Amino acid sequence: MAYRKIDQYILEELYGIIHDRRRVLTEEVDLLSYSFDASLGSYQPEAVIQPLKAFEISMIVKLANKHKIPIYPRGQSTSLSGGPLPVRGGIVLDLSQMKGKLEIHPNDLLAIVSPGVITAEIHKAAEKHGLMYPPDPSSSSICTIGGNLAENSGGPRCLKYGVTKDYVLGLEMVTPKGDIVRTGGKTMKNVTGYDLTKLIVGSEGTLGIITEAILQLIPKPKSSETLLAAFSEIEKAGEAVSEILTSGLLPSKLEIMDQGCIQSVEAYSPSGLPLDAEAVLLIEVDGHPYATKEEIKETAEKCREMGAELVKIASTIEESNQLWNARKLISPAITRIKPTKISEDATVPLSQIPEMFKRLKEIREKHNVSLVVCGHAGDGNLHPNIITDIRDREEMKRAEEAVAEIFSCAVELGGTLSGEHGIGTMKAPFMEMELGKAGIELMVSIKKAWDPNNILNPGKIFPEPNLKFKLI
Amino acid sequence: MAYRKIDQYILEELYGIIHDRRRVLTEEVDLLSYSFDASLGSYQPEAVIQPLKAFEISMIVKLANKHKIPIYPRGQSTSLSGGPLPVRGGIVLDLSQMKGKLEIHPNDLLAIVSPGVITAEIHKAAEKHGLMYPPDPSSSSICTIGGNLAENSGGPRCLKYGVTKDYVLGLEMVTPKGDIVRTGGKTMKNVTGYDLTKLIVGSEGTLGIITEAILQLIPKPKSSETLLAAFSEIEKAGEAVSEILTSGLLPSKLEIMDQGCIQSVEAYSPSGLPLDAEAVLLIEVDGHPYATKEEIKETAEKCREMGAELVKIASTIEESNQLWNARKLISPAITRIKPTKISEDATVPLSQIPEMFKRLKEIREKHNVSLVVCGHAGDGNLHPNIITDIRDREEMKRAEEAVAEIFSCAVELGGTLSGEHGIGTMKAPFMEMELGKAGIELMVSIKKAWDPNNILNPGKIFPEPNLKFKLI
Repeated sequence: MAYRKIDQYILEELYGIIHDRRRVLTEEVDLLSYSFDASLGSYQPEAVIQPLKAFEISMIVKLANKHKIPIYPRGQSTSLSGGPLPVRGGIVLDLSQMKGKLEIHPNDLLAIVSPGVITAEIHKAAEKHGLMYPPDPSSSSICTIGGNLAENSGGPRCLKYGVTKDYVLGLEMVTPKGDIVRTGGKTMKNVTGYDLTKLIVGSEGTLGIITEAILQLIPKPKSSETLLAAFSEIEKAGEAVSEILTSGLLPSKLEIMDQGCIQSVEAYSPSGLPLDAEAVLLIEVDGHPYATKEEIKETAEKCREMGAELVKIASTIEESNQLWNARKLISPAITRIKPTKISEDATVPLSQIPEMFKRLKEIREKHNVSLVVCGHAGDGNLHPNIITDIRDREEMKRAEEAVAEIFSCAVELGGTLSGEHGIGTMKAPFMEMELGKAGIELMVSIKKAWDPNNILNPGKIFPEPNLKFKLI
Repeated sequence: MAYRKIDQYILEELYGIIHDRRRVLTEEVDLLSYSFDASLGSYQPEAVIQPLKAFEISMIVKLANKHKIPIYPRGQSTSLSGGPLPVRGGIVLDLSQMKGKLEIHPNDLLAIVSPGVITAEIHKAAEKHGLMYPPDPSSSSICTIGGNLAENSGGPRCLKYGVTKDYVLGLEMVTPKGDIVRTGGKTMKNVTGYDLTKLIVGSEGTLGIITEAILQLIPKPKSSETLLAAFSEIEKAGEAVSEILTSGLLPSKLEIMDQGCIQSVEAYSPSGLPLDAEAVLLIEVDGHPYATKEEIKETAEKCREMGAELVKIASTIEESNQLWNARKLISPAITRIKPTKISEDATVPLSQIPEMFKRLKEIREKHNVSLVVCGHAGDGNLHPNIITDIRDREEMKRAEEAVAEIFSCAVELGGTLSGEHGIGTMKAPFMEMELGKAGIELMVSIKKAWDPNNILNPGKIFPEPNLKFKLI
């Protein structure tokens, strides 16, 4: 369908809604700044608007419907799947400035937040009351909660605590037609009608623009313990993960780093990781101090039984922080090898983790790519990262083939295309492989019913006819 | 809209799908058996079919679409909100016989089940592998998992572990048009497209007929401890709940029983509950044995600080079982007072629990009804039960007014009409009060897009024009 371009006439209407013209950006330099995210795509919008209130968004959406202009909601653009990219031009709605509300209600165990609030700020605010907001994506110090909600972000704590969606009790949102509605509420249990809250969270901004969220908090565990276990074969590390999880232990974090990650991190900022290990597991247990002390010992024992060559329990908070810091450094560290990082998030059932590692090794060799693997092994959510250089077309072609094979492998092993990054632009061509025609049709029919003009974030999630997968 | 009646011609077509005629019931006595559930309504279907396979259901749904015949999926009919009642006649699809699959996959931490499997059977099967399926509605020994999925059942463990929906990773279902589709999968993280799994769970059989479910299991906690705390004022018990939850403790169960419940249970089967208390809290903590021993002591201390007149930690498993058994006896015990129990599940934010107790006392006096209260105080999900006699029209009228006021109160205090029983037939007239017109429209538009002929469970959830609330 053809969208209308933003001309002077429409701009004047926009100024009628947003009186402060500094919040309507149309300069070339601004449009360029809003043309990319953390994926590889780049598309320029025609205007950028920074709304501060739900009613402003409502009026903009109504205007967009009247004139058929696409709207692209955006947080801090840390998306790895092209979530906020304005692939059809139109308006980028920059919600990062809408950050007025960050309320903690300790007696209700909940937080009420604006979409532009940085996720880490919620963590800090909750902790002041002895509470915890468990979802903690790697980008939490720079990403917005609005982006987390749109993509249903994960992170390392999901094994024990679940994903973003599991902590969203209610939303205020602007519908694709411009109505302001509330879904869910302030209670943990709610079966009043369809669960629109959980439909909207993770819908990548295609079903509504979230203007406020009610998040559930939990008591912050009083204690945690961390260990490092090194393995000479990555498949053995995978088997250790299965063994730990079926032995009655439920770690709060269970992360894996392969040799490529270890060596990159050590080169970038030495953290004491064993350079000769083919993989390390980083494991955290949390809870009552009496329990964590025992459970970390049991976990260490399991690792040894499963062939770990080195097992080290962090004896101080500093040691433990150093290990988790090493995990967080993977991203900056590996991009020193080559500048372009293609970070995937294919996810498999727990029992398939060792097999997935085997397949990833084969893919690395077959396509001759720099493929390093880290990820949330405890929930089957791996991050195969291909390190390449976007200017090397031939290598990019090989990377493209490797990525396509990673997707196929994950689905073949009973897993999914995306555990936590979203479908966005890049994975849309693979949707039918996982969901089948009938499954996609159910989703499309919701989108069409709610957004008949296809105004909200068009070009995402759903495969378009003859769409072929390409990295750039 | 007018539905077609089932005549001999359609019956012959049904026999063409279900060759075993014993699975197509049309005798008066059978139709009567299938005309009620655990709510107060009663509606007779025209035929009852007991399918065993997804493809049979698919063909029946296609036939129903062709001829415009309503279909009412049903498990063991323990619904308290009229979920399976065939309010427009047509076909009741009795899924209780579709129970062929109950697989535990310990290495994937999941179970794969048919809809007719009894929930308690899943508990038992998981426990054999040291695993736990946390959702545990009071009816778990007689209800089907299919019914739990349709209604998103809760139970006492939700405070710490969440509701049914939180443990559903994937579904196979027959759509309202008769397609067989799969949603989600076998992984804890999955952001591939819209979350249809969580949309369908809790949609009360209006969006699809679930034919298989993939459920997440967790390691079974190694230990649990139980205490009883008695209070001379119910509001004080409510305050103790808030105090416990904001002190860093996260009990696995936190239940309340008021004096009416206590006295009924003691008259029915003496369990040693203190007859003079206005309310008791029953609290369980679970986890590592080192932690639970400490946490139950801390919880006891909190109860004493908040004014409990008696606090007793169960010293043996038998003592603990006796207490939890007393909780399970409330339902049979209170129906000995009078035969008709109207069990509500209005749910409020945690901080509003003491206020809700106050309001319930006022409602009891104002409308002169036998109102006893139990419930999952820890998650704000109370069960005000009105005990009456359906043959006493005058008393039923007062009960009706009391129920309407309970709904209004819950919404006024920032809560919801239904925490875990569903909307069904009875609460539909109150939907707009909680959701507003625009909110209901979003839900209705999904229903219309998926089920244009309104075949699946019509007459539920959505208010019909001029629908007035009445109990019978």
